[in-house]
Amino acid sequence: MTAYFTHVSDHTAFRADRLAKTDLFRGEHLFVGLNCFEAGQSQAIHTHAGADKFYLLISGKARMRVGDEVREMGAGNVVWAPAGVLHGVESALARTVMLVGMTASRGVSAPGSQ
Amino acid sequence: MTAYFTHVSDHTAFRADRLAKTDLFRGEHLFVGLNCFEAGQSQAIHTHAGADKFYLLISGKARMRVGDEVREMGAGNVVWAPAGVLHGVESALARTVMLVGMTASRGVSAPGSQ
Repeated sequence: MTAYFTHVSDHTAFRADRLAKTDLFRGEHLFVGLNCFEAGQSQAIHTHAGADKFYLLISGKARMRVGDEVREMGAGNVVWAPAGVLHGVESALARTVMLVGMTASRGVSAPGSQ
Repeated sequence: MTAYFTHVSDHTAFRADRLAKTDLFRGEHLFVGLNCFEAGQSQAIHTHAGADKFYLLISGKARMRVGDEVREMGAGNVVWAPAGVLHGVESALARTVMLVGMTASRGVSAPGSQ
Protein backbone atom coordinates (compact mmCIF):
# COMPACT_ATOMS: atom_id res chain seq x y z
CA MET A 1 0.00 0.00 0.00
CA THR A 2 1.23 3.46 -0.89
CA ALA A 3 -0.56 6.72 -0.21
CA TYR A 4 -2.71 6.11 -3.29
CA PHE A 5 -2.61 2.45 -4.38
CA THR A 6 -3.56 -0.72 -2.58
CA HIS A 7 -5.28 -4.08 -3.03
CA VAL A 8 -8.32 -5.49 -1.26
CA SER A 9 -6.47 -8.72 -0.49
CA ASP A 10 -3.93 -6.81 1.59
CA HIS A 11 -6.69 -5.74 4.00
CA THR A 12 -8.90 -8.80 4.44
CA ALA A 13 -8.94 -9.95 8.04
CA PHE A 14 -11.40 -12.03 10.00
CA ARG A 15 -12.22 -12.37 13.70
CA ALA A 16 -13.85 -15.30 15.40
CA ASP A 17 -15.95 -13.15 17.74
CA ARG A 18 -17.43 -10.57 15.37
CA LEU A 19 -17.09 -8.98 11.95
CA ALA A 20 -13.68 -7.44 11.29
CA LYS A 21 -13.27 -3.91 9.92
CA THR A 22 -10.16 -2.59 8.22
CA ASP A 23 -9.33 0.80 6.74
CA LEU A 24 -8.05 1.32 3.22
CA PHE A 25 -8.19 5.10 2.94
CA ARG A 26 -9.54 7.85 5.14
CA GLY A 27 -9.75 11.37 3.73
CA GLU A 28 -11.34 14.61 4.77
CA HIS A 29 -14.51 13.75 2.86
CA LEU A 30 -14.53 9.98 2.32
CA PHE A 31 -13.68 6.72 4.08
CA VAL A 32 -12.98 3.43 2.27
CA GLY A 33 -12.63 0.17 4.17
CA LEU A 34 -13.53 -3.49 4.34
CA ASN A 35 -16.10 -5.31 6.42
CA CYS A 36 -15.17 -9.02 6.66
CA PHE A 37 -17.62 -11.58 8.02
CA GLU A 38 -17.34 -15.23 8.89
CA ALA A 39 -20.48 -17.20 8.03
CA GLY A 40 -23.15 -16.43 10.59
CA GLN A 41 -21.73 -13.10 11.71
CA SER A 42 -23.86 -9.98 11.44
CA GLN A 43 -23.81 -6.20 11.65
CA ALA A 44 -26.49 -4.56 13.77
CA ILE A 45 -29.02 -2.44 11.93
CA HIS A 46 -27.93 1.18 12.29
CA THR A 47 -27.98 4.53 10.55
CA HIS A 48 -25.62 7.42 9.83
CA ALA A 49 -26.96 10.94 10.09
CA GLY A 50 -25.54 13.17 7.38
CA ALA A 51 -23.44 10.47 5.70
CA ASP A 52 -24.17 8.37 2.60
CA LYS A 53 -22.68 4.88 2.45
CA PHE A 54 -22.47 1.92 0.11
CA TYR A 55 -21.25 -1.65 0.23
CA LEU A 56 -19.82 -3.64 -2.67
CA LEU A 57 -19.77 -7.40 -2.13
CA ILE A 58 -16.31 -8.59 -3.15
CA SER A 59 -16.90 -12.24 -2.27
CA GLY A 60 -19.28 -14.40 -0.29
CA LYS A 61 -23.00 -14.03 0.35
CA ALA A 62 -25.01 -12.10 2.92
CA ARG A 63 -28.58 -11.21 3.82
CA MET A 64 -28.69 -7.41 4.02
CA ARG A 65 -31.27 -4.85 5.01
CA VAL A 66 -31.79 -1.25 3.90
CA GLY A 67 -34.96 0.46 5.07
CA ASP A 68 -37.70 -2.14 4.79
CA GLU A 69 -35.97 -4.16 2.06
CA VAL A 70 -34.05 -7.37 2.75
CA ARG A 71 -32.03 -9.10 0.03
CA GLU A 72 -29.48 -11.86 -0.36
CA MET A 73 -26.43 -10.27 -1.91
CA GLY A 74 -23.42 -11.91 -3.58
CA ALA A 75 -20.24 -10.91 -5.37
CA GLY A 76 -20.77 -7.84 -7.54
CA ASN A 77 -23.84 -6.61 -5.72
CA VAL A 78 -23.85 -3.00 -4.57
CA VAL A 79 -25.97 -1.84 -1.63
CA TRP A 80 -26.83 1.83 -1.11
CA ALA A 81 -27.53 3.21 2.38
CA PRO A 82 -28.33 6.90 2.10
CA ALA A 83 -27.95 9.22 5.07
CA GLY A 84 -30.55 8.54 7.73
CA VAL A 85 -31.77 5.20 6.34
CA LEU A 86 -31.46 2.13 8.55
CA HIS A 87 -29.18 -0.59 7.19
CA GLY A 88 -27.13 -3.56 8.26
CA VAL A 89 -26.15 -7.16 7.63
CA GLU A 90 -28.67 -9.57 9.09
CA SER A 91 -26.38 -12.53 8.49
CA ALA A 92 -23.40 -13.50 6.41
CA LEU A 93 -24.36 -16.75 4.67
CA ALA A 94 -20.72 -17.58 3.89
CA ARG A 95 -17.33 -16.00 4.59
CA THR A 96 -17.94 -12.59 3.04
CA VAL A 97 -15.81 -9.57 2.18
CA MET A 98 -17.46 -6.19 1.50
CA LEU A 99 -15.84 -2.98 0.45
CA VAL A 100 -17.47 -0.03 2.19
CA GLY A 101 -17.40 3.61 1.11
CA MET A 102 -18.87 6.27 3.38
CA THR A 103 -18.78 10.04 3.43
CA ALA A 104 -17.68 12.00 6.45
CA SER A 105 -20.69 13.14 8.43
CA ARG A 106 -21.23 16.88 8.39
CA GLY A 107 -22.43 18.73 11.42
CA VAL A 108 -24.16 15.73 12.94
CA SER A 109 -22.67 13.37 15.46
CA ALA A 110 -22.89 9.81 14.17
CA PRO A 111 -20.71 7.69 16.41
CA GLY A 112 -20.11 4.06 15.76
CA SER A 113 -19.51 1.87 12.84
CA GLN A 114 -18.61 2.46 9.23
CA MET B 1 -32.03 -2.36 -9.43
CA THR B 2 -34.17 -1.06 -6.60
CA ALA B 3 -33.64 2.13 -4.61
CA TYR B 4 -31.03 0.32 -2.53
CA PHE B 5 -29.81 -2.86 -4.24
CA THR B 6 -28.15 -3.41 -7.58
CA HIS B 7 -25.39 -5.37 -9.31
CA VAL B 8 -22.32 -4.13 -11.15
CA SER B 9 -23.12 -6.33 -14.14
CA ASP B 10 -26.40 -4.47 -14.68
CA HIS B 11 -24.46 -1.25 -15.33
CA THR B 12 -21.47 -2.25 -17.43
CA ALA B 13 -21.54 -0.53 -20.80
CA PHE B 14 -18.81 0.22 -23.31
CA ARG B 15 -18.42 2.76 -26.09
CA ALA B 16 -16.18 2.52 -29.12
CA ASP B 17 -15.21 6.20 -29.05
CA ARG B 18 -14.32 6.75 -25.38
CA LEU B 19 -14.71 5.37 -21.87
CA ALA B 20 -18.32 4.84 -20.80
CA LYS B 21 -19.66 6.11 -17.47
CA THR B 22 -22.77 4.84 -15.75
CA ASP B 23 -24.45 5.78 -12.50
CA LEU B 24 -25.36 3.31 -9.78
CA PHE B 25 -26.39 5.65 -6.97
CA ARG B 26 -26.29 9.40 -6.52
CA GLY B 27 -27.02 10.83 -3.08
CA GLU B 28 -26.71 14.17 -1.42
CA HIS B 29 -23.21 13.32 -0.21
CA LEU B 30 -21.91 10.48 -2.38
CA PHE B 31 -21.89 9.27 -5.97
CA VAL B 32 -21.27 5.63 -7.00
CA GLY B 33 -20.80 4.67 -10.62
CA LEU B 34 -18.81 2.67 -13.14
CA ASN B 35 -16.08 3.71 -15.56
CA CYS B 36 -15.80 1.13 -18.34
CA PHE B 37 -12.86 1.16 -20.75
CA GLU B 38 -12.08 -0.75 -23.91
CA ALA B 39 -8.39 -1.63 -24.22
CA GLY B 40 -6.45 1.48 -25.21
CA GLN B 41 -9.01 3.98 -23.92
CA SER B 42 -7.96 6.53 -21.32
CA GLN B 43 -9.25 9.16 -18.91
CA ALA B 44 -7.54 12.52 -18.96
CA ILE B 45 -5.61 13.48 -15.86
CA HIS B 46 -7.83 15.78 -13.80
CA THR B 47 -8.64 16.81 -10.25
CA HIS B 48 -11.67 17.46 -8.08
CA ALA B 49 -11.58 20.39 -5.69
CA GLY B 50 -13.27 19.56 -2.41
CA ALA B 51 -14.15 15.96 -3.30
CA ASP B 52 -12.39 12.70 -2.42
CA LYS B 53 -12.65 9.82 -4.87
CA PHE B 54 -11.60 6.23 -5.23
CA TYR B 55 -11.61 3.55 -7.91
CA LEU B 56 -11.94 -0.19 -7.36
CA LEU B 57 -10.85 -2.31 -10.32
CA ILE B 58 -13.57 -4.91 -10.85
CA SER B 59 -11.96 -6.53 -13.88
CA GLY B 60 -9.29 -5.83 -16.46
CA LYS B 61 -6.02 -3.95 -16.19
CA ALA B 62 -5.08 -0.29 -16.48
CA ARG B 63 -2.14 2.05 -16.05
CA MET B 64 -3.28 4.72 -13.59
CA ARG B 65 -1.80 7.90 -12.22
CA VAL B 66 -2.34 9.70 -8.90
CA GLY B 67 -0.05 12.62 -8.17
CA ASP B 68 3.39 11.60 -9.37
CA GLU B 69 2.78 7.86 -9.01
CA VAL B 70 1.89 5.61 -11.94
CA ARG B 71 0.92 1.96 -11.42
CA GLU B 72 -0.53 -0.93 -13.37
CA MET B 73 -3.71 -1.94 -11.56
CA GLY B 74 -5.77 -5.12 -11.86
CA ALA B 75 -8.85 -6.70 -10.31
CA GLY B 76 -9.05 -5.97 -6.60
CA ASN B 77 -6.80 -2.93 -6.66
CA VAL B 78 -8.11 0.23 -5.02
CA VAL B 79 -6.89 3.67 -6.08
CA TRP B 80 -7.32 6.72 -3.85
CA ALA B 81 -7.56 10.22 -5.33
CA PRO B 82 -7.96 12.73 -2.51
CA ALA B 83 -9.43 16.16 -3.13
CA GLY B 84 -7.13 18.34 -5.16
CA VAL B 85 -4.74 15.60 -6.28
CA LEU B 86 -4.34 14.98 -10.00
CA HIS B 87 -5.41 11.54 -11.17
CA GLY B 88 -6.53 9.64 -14.22
CA VAL B 89 -6.22 6.53 -16.35
CA GLU B 90 -3.28 6.75 -18.71
CA SER B 91 -4.39 3.66 -20.60
CA ALA B 92 -6.61 0.64 -20.16
CA LEU B 93 -4.45 -2.38 -20.98
CA ALA B 94 -7.48 -4.62 -21.45
CA ARG B 95 -11.26 -4.20 -21.32
CA THR B 96 -11.57 -2.79 -17.81
CA VAL B 97 -14.43 -2.08 -15.41
CA MET B 98 -13.87 0.21 -12.42
CA LEU B 99 -16.30 1.10 -9.68
CA VAL B 100 -15.94 4.75 -8.71
CA GLY B 101 -17.03 6.39 -5.46
CA MET B 102 -16.81 10.15 -5.09
CA THR B 103 -18.09 12.65 -2.58
CA ALA B 104 -20.16 15.62 -3.58
CA SER B 105 -17.97 18.69 -3.83
CA ARG B 106 -18.66 21.29 -1.18
CA GLY B 107 -18.56 24.95 -1.95
CA VAL B 108 -16.21 24.56 -4.88
CA SER B 109 -17.23 24.22 -8.48
CA ALA B 110 -15.67 21.11 -9.97
CA PRO B 111 -17.37 20.50 -13.29
CA GLY B 112 -16.63 17.50 -15.39
CA SER B 113 -16.02 13.89 -14.87
CA GLN B 114 -16.54 11.52 -12.00
